[in-house]
Amino acid sequence: MKNFIYKNPTKIIFGEGQIAKLSDEIPTDAKILMLYGGGSIKKNGIYDQVMEALGSRTLVEFGGVPANPEYEVLMEAVELISKEKLDYILAVGGGSVIDGAKFIAAAVNYKGEEPWDILAKGEEIHEAVPFSTVLTLPATGSEMNSGAVISRRSTKDKHSFGSPLLYPQCSILDPTVIHSLPKRQLANGVVDSFNHVLEQYLTYPTDAILQDHFAESILQTLVEVGEKVIENPKDYKMASNFMWSCTMALNGLIAQGVPTDWGVHGIGHELTALYGIDHARTLAIVGPRYYEHTFESKKVKLAQYAERVWNIGEGSLEDKAKQAINKTESFYHSLGVDTRLSDYTDDYEGTAETIEKRFSERGWEGIGENKSVTPNDVKEIIKATY
Amino acid sequence: MKNFIYKNPTKIIFGEGQIAKLSDEIPTDAKILMLYGGGSIKKNGIYDQVMEALGSRTLVEFGGVPANPEYEVLMEAVELISKEKLDYILAVGGGSVIDGAKFIAAAVNYKGEEPWDILAKGEEIHEAVPFSTVLTLPATGSEMNSGAVISRRSTKDKHSFGSPLLYPQCSILDPTVIHSLPKRQLANGVVDSFNHVLEQYLTYPTDAILQDHFAESILQTLVEVGEKVIENPKDYKMASNFMWSCTMALNGLIAQGVPTDWGVHGIGHELTALYGIDHARTLAIVGPRYYEHTFESKKVKLAQYAERVWNIGEGSLEDKAKQAINKTESFYHSLGVDTRLSDYTDDYEGTAETIEKRFSERGWEGIGENKSVTPNDVKEIIKATY
Repeated sequence: MKNFIYKNPTKIIFGEGQIAKLSDEIPTDAKILMLYGGGSIKKNGIYDQVMEALGSRTLVEFGGVPANPEYEVLMEAVELISKEKLDYILAVGGGSVIDGAKFIAAAVNYKGEEPWDILAKGEEIHEAVPFSTVLTLPATGSEMNSGAVISRRSTKDKHSFGSPLLYPQCSILDPTVIHSLPKRQLANGVVDSFNHVLEQYLTYPTDAILQDHFAESILQTLVEVGEKVIENPKDYKMASNFMWSCTMALNGLIAQGVPTDWGVHGIGHELTALYGIDHARTLAIVGPRYYEHTFESKKVKLAQYAERVWNIGEGSLEDKAKQAINKTESFYHSLGVDTRLSDYTDDYEGTAETIEKRFSERGWEGIGENKSVTPNDVKEIIKATY
Repeated sequence: MKNFIYKNPTKIIFGEGQIAKLSDEIPTDAKILMLYGGGSIKKNGIYDQVMEALGSRTLVEFGGVPANPEYEVLMEAVELISKEKLDYILAVGGGSVIDGAKFIAAAVNYKGEEPWDILAKGEEIHEAVPFSTVLTLPATGSEMNSGAVISRRSTKDKHSFGSPLLYPQCSILDPTVIHSLPKRQLANGVVDSFNHVLEQYLTYPTDAILQDHFAESILQTLVEVGEKVIENPKDYKMASNFMWSCTMALNGLIAQGVPTDWGVHGIGHELTALYGIDHARTLAIVGPRYYEHTFESKKVKLAQYAERVWNIGEGSLEDKAKQAINKTESFYHSLGVDTRLSDYTDDYEGTAETIEKRFSERGWEGIGENKSVTPNDVKEIIKATY
């Protein structure tokens, strides 16, 4: 087990009817920027619950944060906070809105040249506006971690950043918020969280026995609830386990003391930037082919995954490892998620070369837990997804 | 899944050689009460590492905190803090020393009549002296939770208490500290943490799929490492997984959203109070007989435990459940831990009646997840341990 430092101070308030508890968590004299996305919260009742909980607190709304939150849009919110002298952010939404809140929180008092440097140059932040969240879409885990991914439309860039100052103070997780979500978004949530675990688990064998079991616990749970939660999001047992699994998949716990990969995400981000494919679906496209391409270095862990998550007891180590990849891809299909780039765009020719070029231009010599997946490997992996 | 609120702000610094990091965690102007136990830290090098990390900080030592930390002793430390105007506590020890630090932290500025009321009457505390820990004995999980158990010799009382103000600010977990521990203490740590999980898991079937898997993860890990860590505590793989399992067993995570029992602990505490038997060993004595006595209400969960932790696939639900109890008891034996009260004292006759009386006098109508284990049941359970 590698050495690690772990601290996660976010307060989780979990359960049906818990949005009302916001009134105990946000200071009564807070001047709030309330951030949300496309406005579905005004149709499904979440907006009304939040407003009732906040009572007479000063509040300015900022709606319209897009999926893959964009720098240009978020900078408008930064200006609004300064202009209105607001001092608290409440993100009501999924990962995009929460990630956006983190960037805004970091950018408001940024002392450097321009806040873009936080993303492009990894400039450290020294203070952040306090914020809390009401999660409306389980998937990214952003509600209990301190990282975010932000895009810039003008340059087709997508950068991640983070800071210990960017944990939400409080996150409300009410599993009934998923009642009105489209099946597409529910499936995305299952695939996204599943891949978060795989990125922290499918590397090389380590001495972290407990972390492996924890990772497998989340995978097992997502396999058990995935199809059912999409079929009937009003099944509270399925919804609550789905929601808590998404949070636990990326709140840092299972990453402690182990190597992590994140190559599937790195390549997937490029597909979103180029074609606007849903983030989770890019992971379903890239993942299986990535594991085939890195088979030799990952096969021991793939076989362990086969045995413990998919109950595959028969066959050689290689057989089990291959079956694990097949099972993973079939799982995505069972959720209604396609796994070929050509399922999403007819324009896929040349994608591999384009992305190889982007990786090379950034000077990335290699990605993955061994930094061994080169731009040329990325090209081969993407070709295999056609 | 039940509604829950979860926040655990303790910073964990985990790994070999990490005690030196104390220098970054404790304010340089802190005036420290350093709390420890019997003085083994002066023989095994931990004391020297701590002193080197603390450098020139003001420090007053308070050694001699006994196992099952005693109110009378801890109150001496409370007086010392007031007299010397100290403002920080560093606990260097196992669960007893850390639990003691929590009580001292709560008692120093207690405004009520006498600090004993925090324990006996459950009086709420409103402030606490900040404290950190260097764990020297993995077992209780106190290094990452906000609860403690304190004894009073004069009345043979043993009370638990807790407060959100009593999370350690930082806990250093260096798995090499176990190198010099006696086998008896290592075995106690395995049994103690194993029972912490069982108390939060062996209840009735719930909808918390993920929490069940997490609990099983810790149990599986302890089964895998238990004998080996006792055999060779210098095996870092075993030591690190043992240490992290003990912390995760009682840092609150697996208890969220599920019923908990704690009946085995409640009865076990009485055996420690009466005979001074090591806490963990009282759990090994009581646990198997407790599960036999509550078999009907626990058998579904016992069978699940049999299947998932002990890989028992054959037999009826009742058969599996019974085998799970046998496996648990055999596991304790494999660690060198006896499971009969008569293994620890020749004076056991009448114990059942004595403890029944103590339970009745406290007005406890029932313990366990269903509050259905009456003082009379407790008597029967203890008789079965003879």
